Amino acid sequence: MAQPKIYPSNDSSPASDFGLSPTEFTTLRTSATQAKALAYCPYSRFRVGATFLTSSSDFIEGANVENASYPVGTCAERVALAKAVVEGHTEGFRAVGVSTDISPPASPCGMCRQFMREFVPLECPIFMFDKDGNYVVLKLEQLLPMSFGPDQLPQPGEAGAQGAGL
Amino acid sequence: MAQPKIYPSNDSSPASDFGLSPTEFTTLRTSATQAKALAYCPYSRFRVGATFLTSSSDFIEGANVENASYPVGTCAERVALAKAVVEGHTEGFRAVGVSTDISPPASPCGMCRQFMREFVPLECPIFMFDKDGNYVVLKLEQLLPMSFGPDQLPQPGEAGAQGAGL
Amino acid sequence: MAQPKIYPSNDSSPASDFGLSPTEFTTLRTSATQAKALAYCPYSRFRVGATFLTSSSDFIEGANVENASYPVGTCAERVALAKAVVEGHTEGFRAVGVSTDISPPASPCGMCRQFMREFVPLECPIFMFDKDGNYVVLKLEQLLPMSFGPDQLPQPGEAGAQGAGL
Amino acid sequence: MAQPKIYPSNDSSPASDFGLSPTEFTTLRTSATQAKALAYCPYSRFRVGATFLTSSSDFIEGANVENASYPVGTCAERVALAKAVVEGHTEGFRAVGVSTDISPPASPCGMCRQFMREFVPLECPIFMFDKDGNYVVLKLEQLLPMSFGPDQLPQPGEAGAQGAGL
Ligand SMILES: [Zn+2]
Ligand SMILES: [Zn+2]
Ligand SMILES: [Zn+2]
Ligand SMILES: [Zn+2]
Repeated sequence: MAQPKIYPSNDSSPASDFGLSPTEFTTLRTSATQAKALAYCPYSRFRVGATFLTSSSDFIEGANVENASYPVGTCAERVALAKAVVEGHTEGFRAVGVSTDISPPASPCGMCRQFMREFVPLECPIFMFDKDGNYVVLKLEQLLPMSFGPDQLPQPGEAGAQGAGL
Repeated sequence: MAQPKIYPSNDSSPASDFGLSPTEFTTLRTSATQAKALAYCPYSRFRVGATFLTSSSDFIEGANVENASYPVGTCAERVALAKAVVEGHTEGFRAVGVSTDISPPASPCGMCRQFMREFVPLECPIFMFDKDGNYVVLKLEQLLPMSFGPDQLPQPGEAGAQGAGL
Repeated sequence: MAQPKIYPSNDSSPASDFGLSPTEFTTLRTSATQAKALAYCPYSRFRVGATFLTSSSDFIEGANVENASYPVGTCAERVALAKAVVEGHTEGFRAVGVSTDISPPASPCGMCRQFMREFVPLECPIFMFDKDGNYVVLKLEQLLPMSFGPDQLPQPGEAGAQGAGL
Repeated sequence: MAQPKIYPSNDSSPASDFGLSPTEFTTLRTSATQAKALAYCPYSRFRVGATFLTSSSDFIEGANVENASYPVGTCAERVALAKAVVEGHTEGFRAVGVSTDISPPASPCGMCRQFMREFVPLECPIFMFDKDGNYVVLKLEQLLPMSFGPDQLPQPGEAGAQGAGL
């Protein structure tokens, strides 16, 4: 995959291709950027902010929450999305914004891409903002091609996907 | 450890030993119980609701959010606490409530006990409600004795905890 | 991304494009397939086997190991790779094989793609075998484009990636 | 819980209370200590080694394997136990050893206690060695009291633990 194009922070045209108004794009960027201030990251010192734009046009924010046992901590994207889910937003997400303090922009880790896969449409744009608000945008299906999803698991009572003797 | 005592749902006296008013106890129980309805758990079909009572006496709720890749999902307790943390509540939690649809009541898994360890005082009571609201209550330090915490990690630049050649 | 091509189980030509001999390819397929029998998956009933071909041409196997607290379990790919790492294989992996009991073949979850990112070359082929041994093959960088990796984290003592006041 | 007693490294009497011979105890300590050298921990610089003594008296080792996305990494105890499980050791573990470079000794994190809960007997001793080989020993049930385990989940087809409408 070629290195994705980095758009300047004030260019909202890619967002409009995904159905976001310029105001929605600006709010998404501002929200994800400000959400970094909510991070608890004494171990990595790597702040991440994330915002999910719901089907009802709410902006729901999160930040990374780390733990002394590193694997027990969680990422900004999962905090924000879990919050959205328990507030009733389980489908139809319109956009995701992720912001860090580096440049070029960081992408969501694979675990967060998988967590999104359960709820976020494959065509949903993920805007990845760098320290200055410049950004890369890719669809979820571009960040997690050939993804593993709910339809691949056996149904209750179904034997098809289990081995003999299980 | 002896099997912990199960209190009837309308007995708020253990809560008062931990400084909660009867109303706060009832609200905690109701909140954790109702939060079960927010769960996304098509794989385990095991609904869990969790509520954290903050130092400012806010009740912050969460529920489990599962994933087709089971290890990628998250538990009610971590959803609620991460939500609390990014809303600015990082210390002084007064109580935690966890509710499931079984009896005797289920306890938080070890991963959630560890996640709490970072923010919740060791003396904080964890109320574990069964399907009827009856409950067991234990302090965090009773659920996670001799816990691993932030003070055991090396400080930045410190070599003491790292091996030769690292 | 177009639906990837499914190769018949006895076609080793794609493997040879990646520098594997026909025998190595067959061993990788057999190993990943047999590793499914090692799975502990009473909850998902979804067996997965995984094999890593190391730079020294060892085949190291793993399978999924689940837990009653679903997020605490782990996947076949991470079991096999962690095993390889603690046996001294931390770079130069030549191929990865993953096998499940479904068709079309399942891919590694996002969390496993991220776990591989730390050790497995971006150009390394991931062979995904279906229940009959037919397969799709993609490079790691195709499964995890624009990945988040070690070089994006702040160095010890470096302030660049941390926010003010951290 | 009172602060647990720290035994000197050459005192094998607590091990003999748990049915380990002095030689087995010494091998467990040496194995867990040496396993630290296998750690991949560039982020925490906190090496951990772990060894599981199986029912067939094999010693199976692991170490922590970290990731740039901290939550994606894994701990020494889970690496060693997953390795044991896929090598066919799923029950009857006789002892666990964990070794770090600090003093007093560190304990397994809550996530690892939960991972062990699935396979390790509640009465199994966990020996926690400090940087000099001195140690604390506690049973799994003392490290994870009132644990959440497999018997608390709904059986396939059972409705008892699921809420209405699930
Ligand atoms: Zn992440
Ligand atoms: Zn949990
Ligand atoms: Zn996986
Ligand atoms: Zn651990």
